Formats: sequence, structure tokens, C-alpha cells
Amino acid sequence: MPIRYTPPDFTAPALAKAPPAQTARVERDGVLPDGFFATTNLPTYVKNADGSWVLPREPRMDGVLVRGEGNSWWVREGRRVKAGDAVVVGSAEDGREGVLVHARGFAGEAGADGDFHFMSSAVSREKPIDYTQIARMLVEEKRRGGYVLWVTGPALVHSRARDNLVWFIRNGYVQALLAGNAVAVHDIEAATVGTTLGMTSEGEPTAGGHSAHMRAINAVRRAGSIEAAVEHGTITEGIMHACVVEGVPFVLGGSIRDDGPLPGVYTDAVQAQDATRQHTIKATMAVMIATALHSIAVGNMLPAYYEDAQGGLQELPTICVDASEFLVSKLKDRGTHQAIGVVTNAQDFMSILRAAVEKAVTD
Amino acid sequence: MPIRYTPPDFTAPALAKAPPAQTARVERDGVLPDGFFATTNLPTYVKNADGSWVLPREPRMDGVLVRGEGNSWWVREGRRVKAGDAVVVGSAEDGREGVLVHARGFAGEAGADGDFHFMSSAVSREKPIDYTQIARMLVEEKRRGGYVLWVTGPALVHSRARDNLVWFIRNGYVQALLAGNAVAVHDIEAATVGTTLGMTSEGEPTAGGHSAHMRAINAVRRAGSIEAAVEHGTITEGIMHACVVEGVPFVLGGSIRDDGPLPGVYTDAVQAQDATRQHTIKATMAVMIATALHSIAVGNMLPAYYEDAQGGLQELPTICVDASEFLVSKLKDRGTHQAIGVVTNAQDFMSILRAAVEKAVTD
Amino acid sequence: MPIRYTPPDFTAPALAKAPPAQTARVERDGVLPDGFFATTNLPTYVKNADGSWVLPREPRMDGVLVRGEGNSWWVREGRRVKAGDAVVVGSAEDGREGVLVHARGFAGEAGADGDFHFMSSAVSREKPIDYTQIARMLVEEKRRGGYVLWVTGPALVHSRARDNLVWFIRNGYVQALLAGNAVAVHDIEAATVGTTLGMTSEGEPTAGGHSAHMRAINAVRRAGSIEAAVEHGTITEGIMHACVVEGVPFVLGGSIRDDGPLPGVYTDAVQAQDATRQHTIKATMAVMIATALHSIAVGNMLPAYYEDAQGGLQELPTICVDASEFLVSKLKDRGTHQAIGVVTNAQDFMSILRAAVEKAVTD
Amino acid sequence: MPIRYTPPDFTAPALAKAPPAQTARVERDGVLPDGFFATTNLPTYVKNADGSWVLPREPRMDGVLVRGEGNSWWVREGRRVKAGDAVVVGSAEDGREGVLVHARGFAGEAGADGDFHFMSSAVSREKPIDYTQIARMLVEEKRRGGYVLWVTGPALVHSRARDNLVWFIRNGYVQALLAGNAVAVHDIEAATVGTTLGMTSEGEPTAGGHSAHMRAINAVRRAGSIEAAVEHGTITEGIMHACVVEGVPFVLGGSIRDDGPLPGVYTDAVQAQDATRQHTIKATMAVMIATALHSIAVGNMLPAYYEDAQGGLQELPTICVDASEFLVSKLKDRGTHQAIGVVTNAQDFMSILRAAVEKAVTD
Repeated sequence: MPIRYTPPDFTAPALAKAPPAQTARVERDGVLPDGFFATTNLPTYVKNADGSWVLPREPRMDGVLVRGEGNSWWVREGRRVKAGDAVVVGSAEDGREGVLVHARGFAGEAGADGDFHFMSSAVSREKPIDYTQIARMLVEEKRRGGYVLWVTGPALVHSRARDNLVWFIRNGYVQALLAGNAVAVHDIEAATVGTTLGMTSEGEPTAGGHSAHMRAINAVRRAGSIEAAVEHGTITEGIMHACVVEGVPFVLGGSIRDDGPLPGVYTDAVQAQDATRQHTIKATMAVMIATALHSIAVGNMLPAYYEDAQGGLQELPTICVDASEFLVSKLKDRGTHQAIGVVTNAQDFMSILRAAVEKAVTD
Repeated sequence: MPIRYTPPDFTAPALAKAPPAQTARVERDGVLPDGFFATTNLPTYVKNADGSWVLPREPRMDGVLVRGEGNSWWVREGRRVKAGDAVVVGSAEDGREGVLVHARGFAGEAGADGDFHFMSSAVSREKPIDYTQIARMLVEEKRRGGYVLWVTGPALVHSRARDNLVWFIRNGYVQALLAGNAVAVHDIEAATVGTTLGMTSEGEPTAGGHSAHMRAINAVRRAGSIEAAVEHGTITEGIMHACVVEGVPFVLGGSIRDDGPLPGVYTDAVQAQDATRQHTIKATMAVMIATALHSIAVGNMLPAYYEDAQGGLQELPTICVDASEFLVSKLKDRGTHQAIGVVTNAQDFMSILRAAVEKAVTD
Repeated sequence: MPIRYTPPDFTAPALAKAPPAQTARVERDGVLPDGFFATTNLPTYVKNADGSWVLPREPRMDGVLVRGEGNSWWVREGRRVKAGDAVVVGSAEDGREGVLVHARGFAGEAGADGDFHFMSSAVSREKPIDYTQIARMLVEEKRRGGYVLWVTGPALVHSRARDNLVWFIRNGYVQALLAGNAVAVHDIEAATVGTTLGMTSEGEPTAGGHSAHMRAINAVRRAGSIEAAVEHGTITEGIMHACVVEGVPFVLGGSIRDDGPLPGVYTDAVQAQDATRQHTIKATMAVMIATALHSIAVGNMLPAYYEDAQGGLQELPTICVDASEFLVSKLKDRGTHQAIGVVTNAQDFMSILRAAVEKAVTD
Repeated sequence: MPIRYTPPDFTAPALAKAPPAQTARVERDGVLPDGFFATTNLPTYVKNADGSWVLPREPRMDGVLVRGEGNSWWVREGRRVKAGDAVVVGSAEDGREGVLVHARGFAGEAGADGDFHFMSSAVSREKPIDYTQIARMLVEEKRRGGYVLWVTGPALVHSRARDNLVWFIRNGYVQALLAGNAVAVHDIEAATVGTTLGMTSEGEPTAGGHSAHMRAINAVRRAGSIEAAVEHGTITEGIMHACVVEGVPFVLGGSIRDDGPLPGVYTDAVQAQDATRQHTIKATMAVMIATALHSIAVGNMLPAYYEDAQGGLQELPTICVDASEFLVSKLKDRGTHQAIGVVTNAQDFMSILRAAVEKAVTD
């Protein structure tokens, strides 16, 4: 099982003719000379004046190379260097300056993955989110008549992201809304009862709150359909209202978890997929927010590309927003490798993205 | 182990004299009458005209109570009611309208915790964040000369929240900054090299990026201190620069994970606690962002209250921001029960909070 | 918004007649006397010999109370006490030993929630899991003919928990299996192709692995049903095989995310709920593992109690296993407050639970 | 910003001489022929008899290729094929069977990352854990006198993993223990007071529990050192006891979060690193459990390899156990790319690993 190590071939011309490592003198204890070489945790060789290549002792990353007795070298933390120490300078890791980081010693022939990686994970809350770029993409899609799918979970309704989604619908950034029963239920609960999941907009539970969504469902069942409830004035604002008024198509895919469900929800999963396919085949961009079920469902159906008006192929940008890295990794693991992950709260995402789009439009 | 159930005492006057449950007729299949009673999953009794109290069959939450044969009652989902069904109406759960939800049947004498809870968790990404309220608190603290501690982790520097923290410092909302070596290192890395953790502000890794923070540390070590590096023009912007220029005190508590560390970091944990105490004893509010280590350290030292100028006691508001619910739960589990949790990305939090404060000031 | 503080009523008889706080002498720097009183972060008053009650200075939790000049008191960390210091001893927090922790000063009249809480969160990975107790419950259910629902997600099939679930089915601990299409697909993929989600049992991706589940689905479609595929020898082992052979009923609820689906899956969500209800109304215990969708679906339908053979009510134990605290909190937030959370990996849960049940049976 | 698509060069000999795609007939609605070609979401071309290569319509993953009118092709879900349809068979994706998946059309010259990936994430709770392999590694290290570092967080003490860690220490699988003050405090709390973090071993909070760890600290301060407390019989069991009795060295690195701290804890972070280095330079394997702080600290200091007795280099296996994927990703992002992630609960990990080692020894 242990991987055999393949040492470097020091007789290769590039290494054989490389100069010995260059050093600079430490002037003051704990202060490094400019241009110091910074170590990694990978096997590293330093070339001496006599042509020998030596592994330094006590290796670790984030250290420097200090000359020892004879031809020996030590890895030391910067704070431990002493005035007078000779510290290697340079930045090349391929040997041409006398230091070789032999990244692929443990990799096989085909081993393309031996380098020192740093901040290379696909998705991480530690990476900045480029809202300006996402905003520019949305503005460009609108300008050239693209077809942007929004796939959303109920977290977007529970929190105050609702007004912002309405704004995107009303301003032409949403060509289809793909969601579940709960998004519509809690949106209509907010429109008719004033709570979502029985909470006020400040997040406080309310008395009788646990039945608020049932009263919302019943109101729509009485009207006969979401469209009718909008027409009759039962629903006067919100996401579903905006879709109906603006003529934005929506697909509400049912699930075993649903209360109600609302009229118009596709309770049959196969019919829900067929209805969804009508939109995925037209998609030129997708924005998925806070839903594992629907993001993966749509991800399964969404090509990684689309044909543009000229018959050329374009990548299909897919933004996936969730509170944890897990969903985006899962989506990628199931083949939607083009997904760009945004690890944040749905409410905050909507708020900042809207501001960025408003700015992009006026710029 | 199983808890004994204590049935209700139906001879108690309030129950004995309660009227039978009232019902309304279903007009149309699947549409409920107004005012329907919504069920929970707890033991529930319905009073009949003959005074008997009956447990309905097939209990579940989010159902309604439908009259069956004789004195029997059924729990049904709304979609399953039929025209002509008699459905219980009302909302009182204490029996006075003929329906009793016996929440505490499984609780002991002291059992204060038997009720039906809905959206009652302490911290959840599913709850809205009230930025307006947090902003108002900060503005009020500034107005009356409060002492607001900001406790931050490096996620705040990695991402673009850095400019926003500078804004809060420059505008008088920060009375002390409590952080670790990494916050200062990556802030100074950004100020001197232009990267954070070797990434560009777009989150892309850079060549040689893994040593960028070491060069930043070395520059400060050469200057002698962070203050000197600001004075000499080595550091010309950023969080540490703003603290030095504005005279905002900071405590950088060292940890075993630190590179360097920077001059001025308290490498001794006991000294770091002593330095921190100088600020916790003055605190009137705390904002903790994206750091488990420092949030819990400060949480341990922070009283749940403070004495105001008049000698009265006030609760000490503590906001805790993290990407997951876990940190806030952990903080509460360790006694900082007054913490208000905000589950989001640090970058987004700073961006929206700043906008909310700017708005609160002009309102 | 700030909550008014209500100071204690020191004229109340219990406080008025309480003795002054007792102290013990520190013998050695940094070493506390036995029985020292440990502070919390809540408002605390110490009674002096003259009857006055005083708030100590520099309050924090995990400190001790050290007598200062005059009638003053200080909170100090244990390491900071000096030989000769007088440190308060005792443990009563209600004043009867001269120390009053006024937990409810910030609570309203009805405020039942002002105490100092420590490790009181409902669900946390930091708490031990009592496998012995869960095992005992399962053994007892089997003994007295209970009806245990198992609700599972595909993580249980991907990992090697599969063999363990088969063991529970074959040994009579499973009265109904409630799951989705994916559980059956990947179980049958393992039985027919030898991979799950295209991975080997070591978790390595395989060539062509992305189509393995499609070939499994096609094999069952050709057979006509899962039962027929078992009968014809297409499926010779695994979870679905064990259910068919042992006559354990299963409900596979479809979702919009499904490939296939397999014959026998309820693609209609309302029909899936109706089929599930046949089991929830009989349930005496539920074990939910690694599925948000199905756990919440079943949680919505499951009463918090059941009627035993004698017509008495019993609590319905509900175990919910997931890799993060979030799912259990969500389940509780939706009313399934009886859920006991287990934060771990599904594979490990199954492995340890099986060993615990085997041990409980032989004990 | 959008990446230009580079279509395949169909004049290349391999493609030019490739045969047209082969098809098989569908016998029954919804049942596919054996050997069907399964689609991905990437640009795919099907070769016709006339030599033309055509993009199929309505692309998606997990579908099959069905011949349409003329030279056209459609992607269809398996359930939608009809008896008589011609479905492409084969598995080669490089064109040599008439189907080309043009994975790298959107990649640049150097683009090595265009393929269809499936279950390729580095760390995921959805992947099985190979306890047998980890056990074998530990047994082999012991056999040949390796130097295994165990880096642990307090979750290992809170839960009942404690006994299992003692077992590993007593049986020679631990050459050094690297941890923080809290691990020792709560271990000694368990040994002297019987609780951990004030909880019983069943996870129940206890009265006065919040001060239990302070009493444990005080007992050791009185004894003078952990070693003395073991010698004097104050500590009679547990992790620290086992280390002292078995002569296993430990480094307790202090942090700003610490209560106490215990005598012997390195409160200075630089001294703690120096003490840790004495072990990292000897390490041949590392097991990191449930600690972000110490895992990243040790990860920073640990080379990715070690020199064996023969002077050859070996990879240094690093196992990292945590409840979420985040820590392992973070560790890798900071350069410890050799880390193998195990996403589970620390208690369960220890329990199963011990059983696996016991089995490996007797096998």
C-alpha cells in the first residue's frame, strides 16, 4: 500500500548544471533577509558548492533554509534565525536556483497531483464571494435575452430574502422559478397571514403560528389555484404574486414532506421532472439557493453547456448558494462540476446580490 | 426509564363545565371551514355532547379533527375532508372550547417543558437576522459612550469584510479589537503584499502565495512593532493601520497555530487573558465574528451584565456570527447564554451591517 | 428594547436572616481552599458581616470570590489568588449561605429561563451517545411486539452500514422501512453491480461508475418489480432483498431528484404519504438515519405518543441520527420535540448499535 | 470572462476512421437494451452512418441516446424509451465507438480538468471509512517501531472515547500525545469528580457541574504537577494517568481559552511549538481527532514525508477525524494535502478503530 518514493534524477542536465543555492546573511536575530526562500512540507533538496544535493533536516512548511555544519542544511522558523546565519534566497522550486522541491516523488507516472497546494479547495467559506461578477452575469443574461433558472428553497422565504426575490422577478432577471410546495406555502402564508413558518419577520414564534401555513393552503384551495387567488385578491404581494403578474413560469415539485399541497403543485415526481425539463433545456444560467432537494434534481437535468443563437457552445454558469460547503460538494460529486459555490446565508446573499445588480446596471 | 403518562383530570371545574367541541360543515371536498382547529402531535381530547372526552384516532400534527361514528373523532389532513364532514373549529388548547391538548401528560411535577414547540430553537439559519436592530444597538452604544468589543477571526480578513471593519473602526463603533495573530498577519499581508492567505481578493491562489504571509511577518519584525510599521509607512491601510491611527486598543492573543508571530502578539496565554480582562471589565456590548477560539475565550471572561453610569445593571448584548449553528450553541453551552446567534458568512454580515448602520445614522 | 433589571428584595426573610458569606484562607499562591464557591457570569451578591449585600468587582464565570478592602469583593481566577486571601466557600446560589446568584433579574414575571445554563443544548456532538440505552429500547420493543419504523437515507447504503441494516431486518428489529428511491437503487446497485454511487466499498470511484445505478434500475424494470427481481435471482442480497424475504413492508417515496425510478416507488407524494400513514399510525418507536427529507416527512406524520395494549399512553421514542446538529434542530423546530439527536456518521452508528444490541441480547 | 469552446477536430484520424455509433432495439417500453451508453452533462457527439457527428438534443446526464428523424439524436431518460426505439450501446467516450464526450472543449491548452467527475470530492461523509486499513497501519507502525502522534481535542474526553484512548496508550499505539489544557482538565475531572464538562457519562448536566473542572484543576495545582498527582494517588485512571504510567510523552499547548491552566501546560505558544517540534521531527504517522486548533498547528509543523531507517523517504500518513468536512478541507488548504479525512463523531471513531485493531492483531 505505501507508495514508493522516486528520488529526483540529479544527473538530468537541468539539475546537473544548476548553480548551488544562494544565501544571504541574517543581520538581526529573528529578521530574515529579503527574498528568503520559504519551505513547504514536501521533499526538498539544496545544492551545495560541491555539487551535492542534500535534504535539509527538521523539515516543515513556512520555514527557511539555514546552512549548518559541512554540507548540511536546517529548516528553521523565521523567529529562530540568528544574526550571521546564511539563509537561502530565491523562489524557483524546480532546481534552477539550487533548490528543488520534489513534489512528485510519491506520485506514479501519471501522477499529476503532487504539487504543494494552498487554498485550492473547490468551495470554502474562507474564500471571498465575487458578487460583482455574479451581478454582471445576470445583467448580461438579461441584456441578451438569456434564460435564467432560479431554484430556491424555503429558507429564502422564511428570512427576508423574499422582497429581494420579488425584485429580481419584477426586473426581468428570472425566466423560470423551480421550487417546492413549501416555498409557495410560506410565501403565501406571509402574504395572507403575515408570518412564515409561524414566525414574525423578526423571527419570533407566534401564538397559533403552527397552523398559519395550513390557513394559507386552505385559502388557495378555496380559490382553486394560485393564479385564481392572485386574481381574486387573496394574494396581493410576494413571490408567487410576482410570478403570476409578471408571467414568469414556475414549477412547484411536490415531495413527501409537503403539507397540503397547494393546487398546482406537481405531486407526481415524474410529472414534476417533465415540467422541469421544459426549462432546463432552455437554460443559459442557473442560480440555486438553499435547497438540497431541488438543486440536485435540477443539477441532474441540467447540461454543463448550451447552444447559443449562432450554434456555438457556451458553458452554462451555475451558482449554488448554501449555508455549508456540503451541498456544493455533493452537487459536484453528482456530476454538476461546473457549479460555483457560495457559502452563506440565503437572506444575505439576496440582499448583497440585489445591491450589486443595481450598481452594475447604473455603472 | 419510560415516563408515566398522567391523564388530565376531567373532573376539574374548568374541564367539567367546558362546552362540547364546536364543529363547522365542510362545503367542498378538500376545503376546510374558516377557523378550523389545527392539530399537534400531542395527546389531544375532544369533548362530546354527552360530556365524554375522547382521544381522536390516527393522530398527527397539521391535521384537523373530523367527527366519526358515535362519539369518535379522526385526525385528517385537510385534503382528505369531504363535503358534509363536521370539522372542529376553535383555537383554545386548554379545553375551554371543548378541545384539550394535554401537553404535560409526560412531564413530571416540575415539568415546565411539555408544550408543543414550533420554531423555538435558539439559533438557526432558518430564522431572519434583524440587522436593523443590531445597527440600532451599535449606534446607541456610540451615542452614549459605550464600550463595544469586537472579537474577530481571520475569515473576516480573508474575505472582503476587511474594508468594512476598517469603516467601523474609523467611525467610532469599535472600542477594542480582540483577535489572534492570524487576523493581524493576513491584514498586513493584504496591506503589504496584496493577498490574504496567498489568495487574491477574487479568491484565486497566487504563485508563491504560500509565503506571502511570511514576508508580511518579516516586514513587521524588521520594523520592530506593528505601530512602528505603521509609522514608517510599511503598513498604509487596513485593520491594524486603522487601530493604530485611531488609537483603538487591540489584544492579539497568540496560539500554537501561529506563524511568526508578529511582534506585539501575547504569546503567553495567561498574559493574553490578563490583557483581555482589561477590556472585558469595561465592556457594554460584544460582537464576535467567525472565531471559535477567541469567542469562547472572551465569552468565558465576559459577564452577562454591566453596571451603567447610574449604578443600575444592564444586560450585556453579545452578538455571535458564524457560518454554522454549532459555535453559538457551544458558546451557550459554556455559559454565555445571552449570546444572540447570527448564522451567516462573515463577509456578508459586515457588508449588510455597515449598510444598516449607515441607514440608522441618517434616519 | 433593553430589559429592565429587577434587583433582589433583600428584605425578604430568607435573605434578611441569611448569614454572611463564609471564607477560607488561601494557604499557597494559586491554590484554592476546598469547597470554594465558583462564580457564574450572572449578577451575584455577597453578604457582609454588617448585613450589606455587595456586587463583586470584575465579574466573570469560573472565578472565585476574594475579599477586598472594606466590604468589597473581587472575582479572581484561581491562579491569581495569593496566600492569605480570604476566598468564599459554599455552593448554595440562593443566598442561604450568604451568596445570591440573581439569575432572574433580567427575566419578566413569567421568566422561567434566567438560570445559569451549562451544557444544556438539546443536541450536540459534544455529548456522549448512549448506545446501550438505544439498544435496550430496541430489544424491549422486539420482546413485546412493538412496531419500529426505520427511516433511512442513502448515506446508509453508500457506506458499509448496509450489512448492519440487513442484520437488523433479519433479526426482527425492523417492522417497516420508510425510504426513497435512492436507498433502493444504490442497495440494488451494490447487489447487482457491486458499487454504490459508482464507488467501490473502499470509496474509490470506478470507470463507468456513473452509469452503474442506471443499469441496476434497468435490471429491476426488466424484472417488473423489486419482488420479482428477488424471486428471479437478480437481487440475491442486501436491504431490499432482506425486506422481501423477511416480509418486512417498505414504502419508497419518490422525489423530483430520482433517477428511474424503480418500479414500486410511489412517485405521487400524496400516495406516498397515504402509504406512510399506514405505518405511522401503528408505530411505537422510530429510528431516523441520515435523511432530512424523509425524517421530516415522517416526523410530520408521527404522533408524540401511542396507545399501548392496555389503552394507556406512552411516549413514542424517536431517534434521529445525522452528521450535523442542524437536522435534529430542524425536526424539533417543526414540532417533533421528542426527537433524541445523535450526531455521527450513519455507518458508525449502525456498526456500534448492532454490537450494543448483540450485547444487550446476551446480557 | 466566458471560456471559448474549442470543438473537436473531426478530421483527426482516430475520429475520422471511427465507426458510426451502434444501436440496439428497445424491446419493451421503459426497459433499456443491455450495454446502453449512459450520458453525462458534457458536450457529446454521435457519429452517423454518413460520417457526420451530431450533438444530441435535450442533453442531460443519466440519460440514453435515442435515434431521431434523419441524422438527429435525442437524450432520453430510460423510463421514456419506447419499444422499437434505437438506443446507442457502448461505453467508450473517446469516439472510437462512434460517441465522443468532448470533456475538454471548455478547457485551455493546459486544461487537465475537463472530465466528467463523479464522487471525486476529497472528503465526504458519503464515502465509506476504511477502518481496517487504518487499523492495519497502526499495527504495522507498532511492529516496526514507528512514532505515531495522536493529536486530540476535548470531544474525545467529553464522550466515552476516553477509555478507548487509554487502551491505545496502554497497548503501545501512541508515541506522543499532543493536546491542549482542556483535554487534560476534563480527563482529570472525570478521574477525580466523575463528570466531564460537568456532564455525567450519559450526557446529563449535574448540579454544580459548572465548577467541576475548576476543582480538578485545583487538585492538580495543589499536587504541584500532573505527574505528582498521579504519584500521590489523586489521579488513578484516565488518559493523563496512562501517559504518566506508560511513559508516553505529552505536550499540552495552552490557549487563551483555557481555565487554570494545569501545571505543566505550555502557556507560551512559542514554547509549545518548540516542544511539539521534538515530536513532529520524529513522526512516522499522525492521527488527529476533533480539534481544529491543534490539528492545524501540528499540520503546519509536520512534513509530508519522513526518512526511514534505510534513508529512503516514506509518505507520512495523516488521519484527520472531525464531525464536518470543513476541518479536513481547511487542513488541506493550509498545505497538509496528504491528510485523509474521516467525517464522524470522535467517540464512534475510537470505538470502531479499537475493535478493528483488536481484530487486526489476532488475524
